[in-house]
Amino acid sequence: MLLQELFDPDSVMIIGASRDRVKVGNAVLRNIMDYKGRIVPINPSAEDVEGIRAYHSVLESPGAELVINCIPVKSTIEAIDEAGRKGAKAAIVVSAGFREIGSEGAKFEKELVATCSKYSIKLLGPNCLGMINTATPLNASFAASMPPKGKMAFISQSGAICTAILDWALMENVGFSKFLSLGNKAGIDEAELLLALEDDPETSVILIYTEGIADGSDFTKVAAEVTKKKPVILVKSGVTAAGARAISSHTGALAGSDAAYQAAFEKAGIIRAETLDQLFDLASVFSTQTPPMGDRTVIITNAGGPGILTADACEKFGLPLADISADLVEKLKEKLPPMASLHNPIDLIGDATAERYGTALDILLDDPSSSIALVLLTPQAMTEVERTAELIIEAKKKHAEKPIAAVFMGGEMVSKARKMLHEGGVPSFPYPEPAVYSLKKLVEYAEWVKRPVPVLEPKPSVDSKGAKAIVAQATSQGKKTVLSTEAKTIANLYGISTPPGGMATTPEEAGGIAKKIGFPVVLSVYSPTILHKTDVGGVKVGLSTEQEVQNGFREIWYNVTRLMPNAEIYGIEVYKMVPQGKEIIVGATHDPQFGKIVMFGLGGVYANFLKDVSFGLAPLTSAEALGMIQKTKAYVLLRGVRGEKASDVGSLVDVLVRASYLVTDIPEILDLDINPLFVYEQGKGCTAVDVKMTLA
Amino acid sequence: MLLQELFDPDSVMIIGASRDRVKVGNAVLRNIMDYKGRIVPINPSAEDVEGIRAYHSVLESPGAELVINCIPVKSTIEAIDEAGRKGAKAAIVVSAGFREIGSEGAKFEKELVATCSKYSIKLLGPNCLGMINTATPLNASFAASMPPKGKMAFISQSGAICTAILDWALMENVGFSKFLSLGNKAGIDEAELLLALEDDPETSVILIYTEGIADGSDFTKVAAEVTKKKPVILVKSGVTAAGARAISSHTGALAGSDAAYQAAFEKAGIIRAETLDQLFDLASVFSTQTPPMGDRTVIITNAGGPGILTADACEKFGLPLADISADLVEKLKEKLPPMASLHNPIDLIGDATAERYGTALDILLDDPSSSIALVLLTPQAMTEVERTAELIIEAKKKHAEKPIAAVFMGGEMVSKARKMLHEGGVPSFPYPEPAVYSLKKLVEYAEWVKRPVPVLEPKPSVDSKGAKAIVAQATSQGKKTVLSTEAKTIANLYGISTPPGGMATTPEEAGGIAKKIGFPVVLSVYSPTILHKTDVGGVKVGLSTEQEVQNGFREIWYNVTRLMPNAEIYGIEVYKMVPQGKEIIVGATHDPQFGKIVMFGLGGVYANFLKDVSFGLAPLTSAEALGMIQKTKAYVLLRGVRGEKASDVGSLVDVLVRASYLVTDIPEILDLDINPLFVYEQGKGCTAVDVKMTLA
Repeated sequence: MLLQELFDPDSVMIIGASRDRVKVGNAVLRNIMDYKGRIVPINPSAEDVEGIRAYHSVLESPGAELVINCIPVKSTIEAIDEAGRKGAKAAIVVSAGFREIGSEGAKFEKELVATCSKYSIKLLGPNCLGMINTATPLNASFAASMPPKGKMAFISQSGAICTAILDWALMENVGFSKFLSLGNKAGIDEAELLLALEDDPETSVILIYTEGIADGSDFTKVAAEVTKKKPVILVKSGVTAAGARAISSHTGALAGSDAAYQAAFEKAGIIRAETLDQLFDLASVFSTQTPPMGDRTVIITNAGGPGILTADACEKFGLPLADISADLVEKLKEKLPPMASLHNPIDLIGDATAERYGTALDILLDDPSSSIALVLLTPQAMTEVERTAELIIEAKKKHAEKPIAAVFMGGEMVSKARKMLHEGGVPSFPYPEPAVYSLKKLVEYAEWVKRPVPVLEPKPSVDSKGAKAIVAQATSQGKKTVLSTEAKTIANLYGISTPPGGMATTPEEAGGIAKKIGFPVVLSVYSPTILHKTDVGGVKVGLSTEQEVQNGFREIWYNVTRLMPNAEIYGIEVYKMVPQGKEIIVGATHDPQFGKIVMFGLGGVYANFLKDVSFGLAPLTSAEALGMIQKTKAYVLLRGVRGEKASDVGSLVDVLVRASYLVTDIPEILDLDINPLFVYEQGKGCTAVDVKMTLA
Repeated sequence: MLLQELFDPDSVMIIGASRDRVKVGNAVLRNIMDYKGRIVPINPSAEDVEGIRAYHSVLESPGAELVINCIPVKSTIEAIDEAGRKGAKAAIVVSAGFREIGSEGAKFEKELVATCSKYSIKLLGPNCLGMINTATPLNASFAASMPPKGKMAFISQSGAICTAILDWALMENVGFSKFLSLGNKAGIDEAELLLALEDDPETSVILIYTEGIADGSDFTKVAAEVTKKKPVILVKSGVTAAGARAISSHTGALAGSDAAYQAAFEKAGIIRAETLDQLFDLASVFSTQTPPMGDRTVIITNAGGPGILTADACEKFGLPLADISADLVEKLKEKLPPMASLHNPIDLIGDATAERYGTALDILLDDPSSSIALVLLTPQAMTEVERTAELIIEAKKKHAEKPIAAVFMGGEMVSKARKMLHEGGVPSFPYPEPAVYSLKKLVEYAEWVKRPVPVLEPKPSVDSKGAKAIVAQATSQGKKTVLSTEAKTIANLYGISTPPGGMATTPEEAGGIAKKIGFPVVLSVYSPTILHKTDVGGVKVGLSTEQEVQNGFREIWYNVTRLMPNAEIYGIEVYKMVPQGKEIIVGATHDPQFGKIVMFGLGGVYANFLKDVSFGLAPLTSAEALGMIQKTKAYVLLRGVRGEKASDVGSLVDVLVRASYLVTDIPEILDLDINPLFVYEQGKGCTAVDVKMTLA
């Protein structure tokens, strides 16, 4: 497998293997004791450490495939260089004092990376807890404990969170295949690990805690592939922090700092958890249950209250309850007491024995009407808690294709059964909501896996050369924007239609343009200093003769120069008046990690306060563009409300795809705002009424 | 105290005190053993039960203040009657077989209630688990265990949930003052218990699990008073179930079944938990921390990752981080290592000792800049977990007025410290999110307690007699609606202005009305069978002469009779055309539990799909009406966007208050829709363009 030199090396060197039990180098050595390959401790003054023969320096030692560096930052570079000369292929640098402490540390980190690349050494860290592979077994970390074996791989940017999770896992008997602390991520990052774990037979679920992905595009590409084979569940912290960059565009303001991550995770089929708690709830379901064929769910309970709470959660999270057919009701009636409620939730009532649970589960799981089962239990007088757990595990074995989750409410009386369920491969929860939420995500994952990989569509035909020339000219003049008319021309070159028109600097010129494009026309002042043109009398609509256009030009000029004497007026735009359509906003902005992201949303006065927008990574396929439109509430409006005709959604898809190529092809365009974009009824297309572009 | 006969009786009778240890009557007797008052077991064939002298019948016994009935339903009524004759003042009927099994059981339940009221016996149940008062102590239930003493009272409609919570509480060492299973709620309900617990010195927090409140108005009134003294935290299940009543109005459709509950809980200052899990998270904070003076929060951590997760949660739930002043930074700098991060979150870094935590906490809590502290800990190499817990508890004692919550992440390594914190009165959580959420709710509760009790405003002057006469005439004719013109007249009588106009049945009449009210006018067909008037050519706008009005009348008549030959046409309304304002919808509907509820929201095509609406219980105070408006996103629009003038919010408040009195004064009006209500700019009021009313 990939990264075998890290996960399963034939020998391991510990640089800084101390005899002092409070030192990290000693902790690492003691952790590594179970490892079957050669262990090479390096200690300048000891002959042996913890009973293992030690070497005074790296160069005196026989070398090793994997090196764990525990010595201070200042000696690290040299030690790694020596290890490289002795044939090291991977290095875990647990030492701190690198980029995280500022510019001096960053310099060391750069040198460390250079040294590693000189010897093609794979680098984990620096400033990390290390790595654990429970299969080898190899605990190459200074963690206080080794987790049990399991099917989950955990990748964490935070060492402290690693420590906390390891401690929790031990108490809860939660197993892991691999445990990785990434630290500063100077070498190995999330994407590389995803690739390595993609075909790891020991790992069936990959869990990630990250505070930020440096190379978003690479990560997205890799993840989209890996998630088709095994689920990737991720917590991204720092989600609500405001972006650092000053926000100059409408789209940028609506995007915030999390939009690109969210769009990337959706594109890549990553299951996003909101909290660490949820991450492990999801993991317990994903690591034991296979993605179901359908989403109809049956709830079995021995009490009404918990049944209602669970049905509430199903409705809240969108997990539909299975219809219990008359036939099925008859089958259940034969075996269950007359007081039992045979509508979903199936209430076996308070005196339900384990056998009653088992019988009901069998009948229900044998029936094709449901694909998922939720089994609830409260410990009442007659309840056989553990035996019920056993029968649930048996039912699970018989119906491996149907996910089951158990909700055993209570404390001491159900704790043994919960452990049994956990060991028997049935996730159990103390309350219904996390069970329902996790199963819903499993259904979504099943849909993701089944969804065909998007076929690469041919790029729409565009005149990118012409567009680039306009942008190049503007940037060469040091401009931060292009003129409104230029922006429209660029949009036209990319096949996005705008009202015909042009820029005039005299009344006569304005009249000439109007005559050429036909009446009625709109006049609109163009000035980089004027944000709200109507407020300063900078717009005139519905002008129907050349004379009106000329008068309108003068009137605007008078208004603007009087109200804003210092405004720099580039000219007055003349364009053909187009019929009012539904107001849409299409935009694009750039993200330092993920590149260009495209926005779709409801325009007009509603855009700012409803924030009914969605995002996708550029370039977009048609399917992705349609998905973005469908995700907004505006989609309901576009399909037509109250007998109104549907809008031309196809033309919006086309504009989104073309806009996504525009900002991809010409990276100098930092932000794009098409606002408003008027969309007309089905078959009548759409028109970009105003187009703005910000340049790098 | 109220219900003393239930909580603290001088004697307790167990009817059906069985010697058989698997019987409920035996379980109740054994549970009650710790009780210090007289115990009176009734058993037809035994001289003693569990070593206590028994009586063969109720009448032969000396009687008791509290009676616990465990015998089958058929003998229950007689037994309670006898107990009443012997002076019983309260009865707990644990027996099942009443309303919950259908009509026959419901008959028994009615008789039971009648018997109890004959002797003024307070009835708990039937079909319940019983009651526990840990102060007396008195365990008058067949629960399998007795919870530890504590400050929380728990009231549950579901016996199974009682059982599960009791079992969980025992394991987690969570204490309760009282534990009440309500069962069928034939006698004592949530409102009566709230009143009783209001002044109970043993109880500082009241927790409720309910599936529905029968008398919503009474409950709301009582709760609004109790919550000013102690927090009431509630889970209402069945929240997403669709209402049973066919929905005839726009408002009804937008309301759903939960709107009235939500409005009532808000009006009453009840803290609503979404899940049982959250209920106890909230309880752990509310039962130990006092409501804070402010909401600024400081986060103290020994690792970056958890700090970011917590800051995320603070932003998500709206708990603002305290600014750390330069002065405060200096104070911290003196005592903390140079690597520590002194921006909130305060990162004491990985090697933080307990003393460092203690010092930082003291400095920060001494400073007025923050009112709340969140202390995070991950178990790292140098971490002194238990000692840190001790110092947090000490800091808490010194700063009782500032709520503190601890987030100790991990498993075995932090479990002892978590217990210490729990016993020391500091709520602790394994993850940040529930801690932050609970503290945010505590802040909101502090605001609720400080908020002055709404002063009863004088009712606006309305002509309710006139309005009632119109409704009475309609109902006397068996009508289910009033005419559009009548609805407008009723609105006018309640001080809600509408465009002047009237109903015409001939072109000449229409012309006459138009001449009277002035031009231009709108014509609009009025027919109960026509829902979308414009679709059938039933509306004409902007008619400016008498001739145009007469022609318009004929045109509409022709259009409608041709397209809908069977439509019953009441006439054609003529009303003065009013300028377009912002479209608002104001409505009211009725709820079987809470009576009339009023709705406010964005109107027009957006109403249906944005569902940007809020609800309040009628009648409304001005403050409540304003609160409803401010809760919607539309409020941003009303304040004016992009330099637009603000709308006349005051006039909307007035309409809401008047509409709320209208539906309260005339309960026959089941549903009210004012849609659209045009609101104009500040000072120019609003006009109800269309008014509809459905009658009982």
